[in-house]
Amino acid sequence: MLITSLNNSHIKDLIKLKDKKYRDKNKKFLIEGEHLVLEAYKKGLIEELILDEDALFPLDVKTIYVTKQIIRKISSLDTPCNILALVRQPNEEKMGDKILMVDGIQDPGNLGTIIRSATAFDIDTVILSSDCVDLYNPKTIRSTQGMLFHINILRRDLGSCILKLKEEGYKIVGTKVTHGIDVKDAKIFNHFALIVGSEGSGVKENLLDLCDENLYIKMNDACESLNVAVASSILMYELYHK
Amino acid sequence: MLITSLNNSHIKDLIKLKDKKYRDKNKKFLIEGEHLVLEAYKKGLIEELILDEDALFPLDVKTIYVTKQIIRKISSLDTPCNILALVRQPNEEKMGDKILMVDGIQDPGNLGTIIRSATAFDIDTVILSSDCVDLYNPKTIRSTQGMLFHINILRRDLGSCILKLKEEGYKIVGTKVTHGIDVKDAKIFNHFALIVGSEGSGVKENLLDLCDENLYIKMNDACESLNVAVASSILMYELYHK
Repeated sequence: MLITSLNNSHIKDLIKLKDKKYRDKNKKFLIEGEHLVLEAYKKGLIEELILDEDALFPLDVKTIYVTKQIIRKISSLDTPCNILALVRQPNEEKMGDKILMVDGIQDPGNLGTIIRSATAFDIDTVILSSDCVDLYNPKTIRSTQGMLFHINILRRDLGSCILKLKEEGYKIVGTKVTHGIDVKDAKIFNHFALIVGSEGSGVKENLLDLCDENLYIKMNDACESLNVAVASSILMYELYHK
Repeated sequence: MLITSLNNSHIKDLIKLKDKKYRDKNKKFLIEGEHLVLEAYKKGLIEELILDEDALFPLDVKTIYVTKQIIRKISSLDTPCNILALVRQPNEEKMGDKILMVDGIQDPGNLGTIIRSATAFDIDTVILSSDCVDLYNPKTIRSTQGMLFHINILRRDLGSCILKLKEEGYKIVGTKVTHGIDVKDAKIFNHFALIVGSEGSGVKENLLDLCDENLYIKMNDACESLNVAVASSILMYELYHK
């Protein structure tokens, strides 16, 4: 089926998905590009494949063809891909043993990069604070490189979540730029929740107060701090290798 | 002095600095925001402080005041800072012992983040390939968090540079996603050049052929690769801790 009109009601609905409110309400989002579409397909999450009228991409899912003008309208890229998909938000699963909590990250590129590294370093659950940037922001999705489909991601109030995890015997590990235990010297944890904080101000004080210990990354004094996605990745890397 | 006209020839020259060609020709660039301006000031690189007519920021350098309209024109931000500075490009220094070579990175955020981490982990010289994104791109500068003023950065043809460094006894260390030596098991190097590659395709084959060895980062199979700034930072972190 080729859709040519921007006034088509289905196309209007797809355009609305640029707005977080509609993504939340409908539990759906759009992805762009072959790589992301294939990752979502492997997980059975594609509701509809949306192809440029000239594109060839045979997948065993419902497919619509649209004009280049429509692609430009629904895409979030300056140079749109000719392959897009309407995708269901993955269901939340039970919390695993190795949890990453993300407290207030604002930059979608940083959040996506952290999720990509979390998948690489065996984190099984990522918990986003309520003030974190949207997981289904197109920039977040792109930065995950499709890894958001391979990991359990929840959104919770971190404070009450930490209290519950403490009761269940999880080690709660905060992060500070200069205080605590050098992550190189940290012990192995079987059940842990590692908390990383926002770009400007790190992990919130009320959450740090709940932590069993804090980790930091040793570095040269000339540099005040690392990019938050880099710091989070180094911490996960070290815990993965213990 | 308050400048109010966009037709002022000096203001026109400042606006031209948005273009890489003019930055290269004049060996100058613009920075925005208190933090970056202070970092450049510490290194004596500020040629002129540019303040919004209502801003207060007393520094012992030549200062001009401009209207908000002019700030909007010279700024590269959607929400401009009211403190900017015209800065001289730092002089290149002699190569140090711990070199990072950056081969073809395209994203200014990634390049800036890598430079920030390089400063944190005691790299003394960063060498950019000729096809790397511009160091003085406003997004690169922002992502360095001012660290570009604390490290020696050169732009060279990497192939001939590697040959020269090999003669001088440097260990040339390439990076591949899955082949080589796990960086955890790598030996200590006193003089080294670590090469990291571009977002899509990694280090170029002709450069890898010149390497003494390749390093990789062990990770979960579910994830094909890490973000290049994350991977570069983990490698530098490990070499720093050896």
